[in-house]
Amino acid sequence: MKPVKVGLCGLGTVGSGTFAVLSRNQSAISARAGVPIEIVHVGARRDNPACDLAGVKVSRDIFDVARDPEIDIVVELIGGTTTARELVSTAIANGKHVVTANKALIAEFGNELFAAAQAQGVSIAFEAAVAGGIPIIKALREGLAANQIEWLAGIINGTGNFILTEMRDKGRDFHDVLKEAQALGYAEADPTFDVEGIDAAHKLVILASLAFGMPLQFDKVFTEGISQIAPEDVNYAQELGYRIKHLGIARQTEAGIELRVHPTMIPAKRLIANVDGVMNAVLVKGDAVGPTLYYGAGAGAEPTASAVVADIVDVARTLSVSTSQRVAHLGFHALANPNPNILSMDEVETAYYLRLLAEDRPGVLAKIANILAEAHISVEALIQKEPINGAAEVPLILLTSRGRERQLMLAIDKIEALSEVHGGVTHIRVESLG
Amino acid sequence: MKPVKVGLCGLGTVGSGTFAVLSRNQSAISARAGVPIEIVHVGARRDNPACDLAGVKVSRDIFDVARDPEIDIVVELIGGTTTARELVSTAIANGKHVVTANKALIAEFGNELFAAAQAQGVSIAFEAAVAGGIPIIKALREGLAANQIEWLAGIINGTGNFILTEMRDKGRDFHDVLKEAQALGYAEADPTFDVEGIDAAHKLVILASLAFGMPLQFDKVFTEGISQIAPEDVNYAQELGYRIKHLGIARQTEAGIELRVHPTMIPAKRLIANVDGVMNAVLVKGDAVGPTLYYGAGAGAEPTASAVVADIVDVARTLSVSTSQRVAHLGFHALANPNPNILSMDEVETAYYLRLLAEDRPGVLAKIANILAEAHISVEALIQKEPINGAAEVPLILLTSRGRERQLMLAIDKIEALSEVHGGVTHIRVESLG
Repeated sequence: MKPVKVGLCGLGTVGSGTFAVLSRNQSAISARAGVPIEIVHVGARRDNPACDLAGVKVSRDIFDVARDPEIDIVVELIGGTTTARELVSTAIANGKHVVTANKALIAEFGNELFAAAQAQGVSIAFEAAVAGGIPIIKALREGLAANQIEWLAGIINGTGNFILTEMRDKGRDFHDVLKEAQALGYAEADPTFDVEGIDAAHKLVILASLAFGMPLQFDKVFTEGISQIAPEDVNYAQELGYRIKHLGIARQTEAGIELRVHPTMIPAKRLIANVDGVMNAVLVKGDAVGPTLYYGAGAGAEPTASAVVADIVDVARTLSVSTSQRVAHLGFHALANPNPNILSMDEVETAYYLRLLAEDRPGVLAKIANILAEAHISVEALIQKEPINGAAEVPLILLTSRGRERQLMLAIDKIEALSEVHGGVTHIRVESLG
Repeated sequence: MKPVKVGLCGLGTVGSGTFAVLSRNQSAISARAGVPIEIVHVGARRDNPACDLAGVKVSRDIFDVARDPEIDIVVELIGGTTTARELVSTAIANGKHVVTANKALIAEFGNELFAAAQAQGVSIAFEAAVAGGIPIIKALREGLAANQIEWLAGIINGTGNFILTEMRDKGRDFHDVLKEAQALGYAEADPTFDVEGIDAAHKLVILASLAFGMPLQFDKVFTEGISQIAPEDVNYAQELGYRIKHLGIARQTEAGIELRVHPTMIPAKRLIANVDGVMNAVLVKGDAVGPTLYYGAGAGAEPTASAVVADIVDVARTLSVSTSQRVAHLGFHALANPNPNILSMDEVETAYYLRLLAEDRPGVLAKIANILAEAHISVEALIQKEPINGAAEVPLILLTSRGRERQLMLAIDKIEALSEVHGGVTHIRVESLG
């Protein structure tokens, strides 16, 4: 089958991430798309030593990529709105589909670019423009297509969320944390875009237009940053049962549509109040589905590349596969794994919680630990309760290291056979999901 | 444009929910699909008084729907695996696309049904089969298409999660909560499918096949229920910093693939550990994107209908719209809201957190409350701190009722003008996001 040919403009963080993901996962990605996907032309002012460009045409003038007659999809990852706008317009005029991660470009010039794409019969895909690797644009345009969206609220700037999380966890001051975020590379030397909410406003405008079916209107967003949040406000919020998050909120009301980015106090028990550090999340309220939440990394080379490549696959599927089979039933046109080896539970490794009743005298714990050690399982934590009403037996609770299920079950048999242990050993598997 | 014609089989909970959502949101759904979507034929053993079937052909024999030459898409919402399997096979043989919410059917007979659909050039869509309204199947097949999925873990049975949440929150016993869940309609009279993990195993098999590109293998899942979880285990888990959740876990390891459903202890700080009540969530770890989480209602008439209708829109988009414009840039082919009224911040209503320094003497609080009352804003909570080092002024923290931003700002001006108030009034907007 004729491959889908991609031209990649920009080899910075996201560009090199996209190059890496497409190279590393090439076979799985092509099996999902139903057609090979190849980067055939890269436009970049200079090479990036992280990318092996052997066999790929390289141009110093990115407009050469947009005009290359070989190419089906132009991927714009140069950022900014001046050259990027020209590049995307040129690609569209040359009949190319466009994939971009550029939130400012879409928020500020999306209306004109979409109209041009429509006229040319090509598409502009921009999943990576909002919330990095979280497929929130696909969720709003497709997954929630049945719903009237009532409102959405998002933590859509990781830098701001990192600062607020540090302020809460460590009682630190805004300016102090900002300096650390800059040192860690989370925040730019000029942090205005992040901490004053402009970056979040760009993303909110895009989400709101998808939710409510309206043109992009960046100039209508109310924007307030987090630089005025004092440590005492963070503490009082906690005392009242709330957390402060920098939210982008879009809401359809009878009077009109609210579009606003500002520090917001939300009940601490809400899931979105517990989204910490640089992570992003978007909470969407639909009339049929109720609340749904989408969580993940909102920035970074490979998370953003994940969304860029998903868009490339989307375009490739639409271009190349018969319409009735655009997406294969199990996602892969040729199953990546037609004959997988499914492990029996015996072979699975996890950590364990064990609870048992043991006689309250010296040496019992040592016997149990020895049995576990023979199974190559160690004790990571222990709760030993006082005997109840002077009973001779006490509950013993153990958290173990990871071990193989079969070994653990044999160890439990041996522990249950100890005369000092009364009754069975309760076990629950423990996963860190980290 | 020629409408896409839908035949709906089954008018139970999900069937009548689907009918309601398609009727209520018809114009927005058609604008998203780019083509009108109409239910033209309903198959059900009896009418459902909740559905106004005027103008819709009704058959008592659902197979009449599957054979109706007018119909493009057959929606199977009858449940079970015997008649449903025959119905879907008949629909496929008659060249219909199929949308189903039937997890057992897909998990147990998906391989044969997908092969039949492939041969006929039609598609079977099953977003509603896993985690109700959460678009997790779309996320795995499309949104995360760039990734090698390393593992996934899901709370994919709401009944089980409700029981475990009640056990933790209220220290109740399994059997006691189960009875309540049955009374509330969350659990069936025979709760085996839910509490022994069979329902979760059906869903896990589907997710795992999408993640790893492998055939559906229901008989390979290890399944352990939650009926053995004792209240003391719930407490000890909490003491150790963990929570117990009934998880479906699929993981690709060097030795093979793990497929297992069992009670699992996970660190309390993980987002998924905080998914409570009947809600579902799926945590997916991709090699490029890292961890992403998808949260929402996993069951219920309209949440499930949300997924059923999204699948109908998906098929309709593929059937009727030029391939390059399968999904409109902003999701709607004709913008639902071309000239929206975006509210100015002055017009927005929220609640507020206020912090100020006031002299520590009688009457000050009354003056402040009066100013707020004139602005139709009341005080919902108050923290008044002791004066620091015998200072004459004390921090005063107020949580207000919802009020209009402009009124609140005027009230703040008046509060700041009080001689007893020193310095400015800090305000942070409060949203319940409930």
